[in-house]
Amino acid sequence: MSLFEKHRATFERAQLACRERHCWSPYPELPAKYPDAEAAQAAGRAAFRAHLGQRFALDQPGAVGELGEEVSPYTQQPLGVRYPQAEVDTLFDAAQQAMPRWAAASIDTRIGVLMEVLDTIYREHLFEIAQSVMHTAGQSYNMAYAGSGVNALDRGIEALVYAHQAMQAVAPSARWERRFGPAQIVLDKTYRLVPRGVAVCFSCASFPTWNAWPSMLASLATGNAVIVKPHPATVLPMAISVRVFRRVLAAAGFDANLVTMALDTVAEPLGKRLVKHPKTAIVDFTGSVRFGQWVEQNAHPALSFTETAGCNTVVLESADDLDAALRSLATTLCMFSAQMCTSPQNIYVPAQGVRTPQGRVPLDEVARRLADAVAALTSDPKKAAMILATLQSPQTLALLAQMQEEGAKRGRVLLRPEAYAHPEFAQARTSTPLMLQVGKDARDLYGEERFGPVSFVIACDDAADALRQATADVKQFGGLTAFLYSTDEAYIAQAEAAYAQAGAQLTINLTGPMPLNFAAAYSDYHVTGLNPAGNASLTDLSFVASRFRITQSRRPAPLTSP
Amino acid sequence: MSLFEKHRATFERAQLACRERHCWSPYPELPAKYPDAEAAQAAGRAAFRAHLGQRFALDQPGAVGELGEEVSPYTQQPLGVRYPQAEVDTLFDAAQQAMPRWAAASIDTRIGVLMEVLDTIYREHLFEIAQSVMHTAGQSYNMAYAGSGVNALDRGIEALVYAHQAMQAVAPSARWERRFGPAQIVLDKTYRLVPRGVAVCFSCASFPTWNAWPSMLASLATGNAVIVKPHPATVLPMAISVRVFRRVLAAAGFDANLVTMALDTVAEPLGKRLVKHPKTAIVDFTGSVRFGQWVEQNAHPALSFTETAGCNTVVLESADDLDAALRSLATTLCMFSAQMCTSPQNIYVPAQGVRTPQGRVPLDEVARRLADAVAALTSDPKKAAMILATLQSPQTLALLAQMQEEGAKRGRVLLRPEAYAHPEFAQARTSTPLMLQVGKDARDLYGEERFGPVSFVIACDDAADALRQATADVKQFGGLTAFLYSTDEAYIAQAEAAYAQAGAQLTINLTGPMPLNFAAAYSDYHVTGLNPAGNASLTDLSFVASRFRITQSRRPAPLTSP
Repeated sequence: MSLFEKHRATFERAQLACRERHCWSPYPELPAKYPDAEAAQAAGRAAFRAHLGQRFALDQPGAVGELGEEVSPYTQQPLGVRYPQAEVDTLFDAAQQAMPRWAAASIDTRIGVLMEVLDTIYREHLFEIAQSVMHTAGQSYNMAYAGSGVNALDRGIEALVYAHQAMQAVAPSARWERRFGPAQIVLDKTYRLVPRGVAVCFSCASFPTWNAWPSMLASLATGNAVIVKPHPATVLPMAISVRVFRRVLAAAGFDANLVTMALDTVAEPLGKRLVKHPKTAIVDFTGSVRFGQWVEQNAHPALSFTETAGCNTVVLESADDLDAALRSLATTLCMFSAQMCTSPQNIYVPAQGVRTPQGRVPLDEVARRLADAVAALTSDPKKAAMILATLQSPQTLALLAQMQEEGAKRGRVLLRPEAYAHPEFAQARTSTPLMLQVGKDARDLYGEERFGPVSFVIACDDAADALRQATADVKQFGGLTAFLYSTDEAYIAQAEAAYAQAGAQLTINLTGPMPLNFAAAYSDYHVTGLNPAGNASLTDLSFVASRFRITQSRRPAPLTSP
Repeated sequence: MSLFEKHRATFERAQLACRERHCWSPYPELPAKYPDAEAAQAAGRAAFRAHLGQRFALDQPGAVGELGEEVSPYTQQPLGVRYPQAEVDTLFDAAQQAMPRWAAASIDTRIGVLMEVLDTIYREHLFEIAQSVMHTAGQSYNMAYAGSGVNALDRGIEALVYAHQAMQAVAPSARWERRFGPAQIVLDKTYRLVPRGVAVCFSCASFPTWNAWPSMLASLATGNAVIVKPHPATVLPMAISVRVFRRVLAAAGFDANLVTMALDTVAEPLGKRLVKHPKTAIVDFTGSVRFGQWVEQNAHPALSFTETAGCNTVVLESADDLDAALRSLATTLCMFSAQMCTSPQNIYVPAQGVRTPQGRVPLDEVARRLADAVAALTSDPKKAAMILATLQSPQTLALLAQMQEEGAKRGRVLLRPEAYAHPEFAQARTSTPLMLQVGKDARDLYGEERFGPVSFVIACDDAADALRQATADVKQFGGLTAFLYSTDEAYIAQAEAAYAQAGAQLTINLTGPMPLNFAAAYSDYHVTGLNPAGNASLTDLSFVASRFRITQSRRPAPLTSP
């Protein structure tokens, strides 16, 4: 049975989900539901520990040395994993040599092999990757399993579905007949899908696999090779991934060099050289706004697909159950210490307060109750550990200190950040959130992404002004998600239109246990491409359709006897 | 009946043709087959003549003066048409204001209105446009009807089919249900298609409507507005088009300013300002390699779709019927004096000659027989007028003189260019083709597009060298089409692979009355995007899929009683 046949049922189910955009996943959503969960989790922990202090074996060409500077946010100790540093030109040459055979394979063959890659990650490396995400990105165990594990796998399948759709739309051949004057011309035409070339995929420090897997799969499914460039702080999850890709590709009879890894250090970054390399045909970038914008401006002639960050906004106009709304907001502000590109930052509230069935709740009270809700979530270290996890980078602590000082001068500190004692890792880099209340005039403070657990409650003239300010943030600074609480249907309709223009994905009046910024594979589009938070959307047709090109040849059909 | 219903049958037939890529068109392929042809042609001529020396009425905003410097290549007299010159910022503002209502219309509504535009051009303006193409671009009457008329309309429908396909792939809404802990979360999601913004569409001097109509339709179908920037030498066909778009849009209840025209002069070009305008979201460019490359490099943050030019190549390795091959090549070298982006220029022949069933025909003889075939086509002025038509630009005459002088020094002049006496227009700007025979060392001569009736027979070491040289031209200088004659299936397979990598559309062993470079709508992909001849393909999904973005909003589903 071919690999495509092996995975056909799952793939077709995923196609249906993408078409209808309902909730579906082939994977268990919680670690405890994984088959033989305890043994699998223990094996994953053991596999992760076996990497520590070791040389990571990656049999790719061009090794010129070793690199490795990862530090666990949980232990604040170096992982000690040493990865091969490869000569960049060698990687590009090897990638180019690997492509023709892969590009010549059928669409279904490529899809089958890539589904097998995802399945292998799921069956054999999921908990190893979850542990490695914890100890590099600093995520909680549950988030590392779900967000960086099964949800990222789902998004990979989703990318394959769209790549398949775009490629299947091209007829492989045609017979074309037309009369020209006295003659009937009969041509046989064949159409070939030709990959662009070598793709470079940058993965980020805090959420390495989530965009990287779908980006890699979009490029590979369409016949390209991929060089992965992980953030130097978060290499291990991508190194394990690259090794699985290579192993499954080779086992299927293809050149493992379709997927390789280029490594750098914070001190000597390699990014610009990779983007401007003459053999780079595609760049996928997840990371900082600054470098993302540089990529967008400088990738040409390579295509670029970027997802960076922005000022995600909340508008709190009115609510039937204000406490439920504030609890949901508080949860989302705390989730992974707001180190997600979808975390809210700027909370706009009318100066007159928020309308509720019990009357208008004054702005200061709303701010205080929101801060109380955050404090309630984070006061118990065990709960705090589950939701806040750790801070990926020490720079975030410095940012919190600086923002607190500035915020105290310019407004009011609603909640002071403090380290909390992680119940399992005494040395974990932790902090409870910083919350500030400011006026619109503090735009220099809130008018850019402050990466980490920092949020601003911002007083606005009125409801219309709140919406205007919030959507202006999105347009100017970028925005991926947006959150609205209102009982006024006319106001909701205005907000839907305004956020659609600004290009942020809007969640309205959601309360309850679902994190407000939860992005469902097969259903939620991530990033619109309409504002500075990124130029691509994971996953729509435009994310895949230009990764391959169509060439054709035509010739007179063979004469047949009548 | 809605406009979509009115055109549904044609549109669905076009969808089938795009899927299967067979030969189809709703339009008669020859002027004589047009309904009530004589009267329609007379009316078209009269409508064209009525423009001459007049002010072209275009009720768009921002008029600040008048421009018009068109000269007929047939009479070498100014047309004297004066067009409104518009203030660019006003056009952008008007375009932006026009968009929300258009973007809010259903996909089918937009498709219906745009099908009506094409139908109106066909029914009411086809011969007027054909005459205006003749007297600006210099095409023959038949080509102006077919290539700039019905074939361009077909390509417009084709763009609509792909735009429809990309937009229809997005579900308009979904219900999403998932359990989070104790709670069942039920969300209603709505997905909106949001246009990018204002598109700028550059049309070229020699083939104004052919790419411009599909580009305009791709942008408009996906909800954007379009500002057309015609080449100052060839304004009238686009001015008539713009007026039809505006009239049909307004009659359908939309803002006519969805389509406007920005005009410049050769002396004071406006192109860079339009591309870099902060409100430009999309650029479609057909024209010179130099400006096309500037567009690709500088359009960001706007998307760019370019089609420029290149060195289209011929490889003549062997033939069953060499004369038939040479006749077909000769026809294609003469067609519209090779002022088509698909015209061949560089003809690679092994030094040992071409294999035929009668034995190897020496290179010099092949070159001479090809030149004789061209001379035979062009010696009779009536036939010459039909096939060569006129030279769009006086610069082409200067190029011919310069190339003849250089070519005589570096190789052999196979055919000297001479003005021929056009039987209908005594003052027509005409020339028979220049043909040169050179060695590979004359790459400085043939290693770029020489726009006009110039071709080079180039001696190669052997068949393998011919293919290597030809595909190297495509990669380095760009190439849209390629032509191969060979009876060796292994060589053909190599050539198919090599040209697919280089990204030129290959035609193999075609003889007979069909022009070798004929590009069939719904069947042939034009430009691959794999070499410097352009970054887009008319039309595939990637030509349309990024012209709109997807935004979403989601909210808890209303509670329903069980």
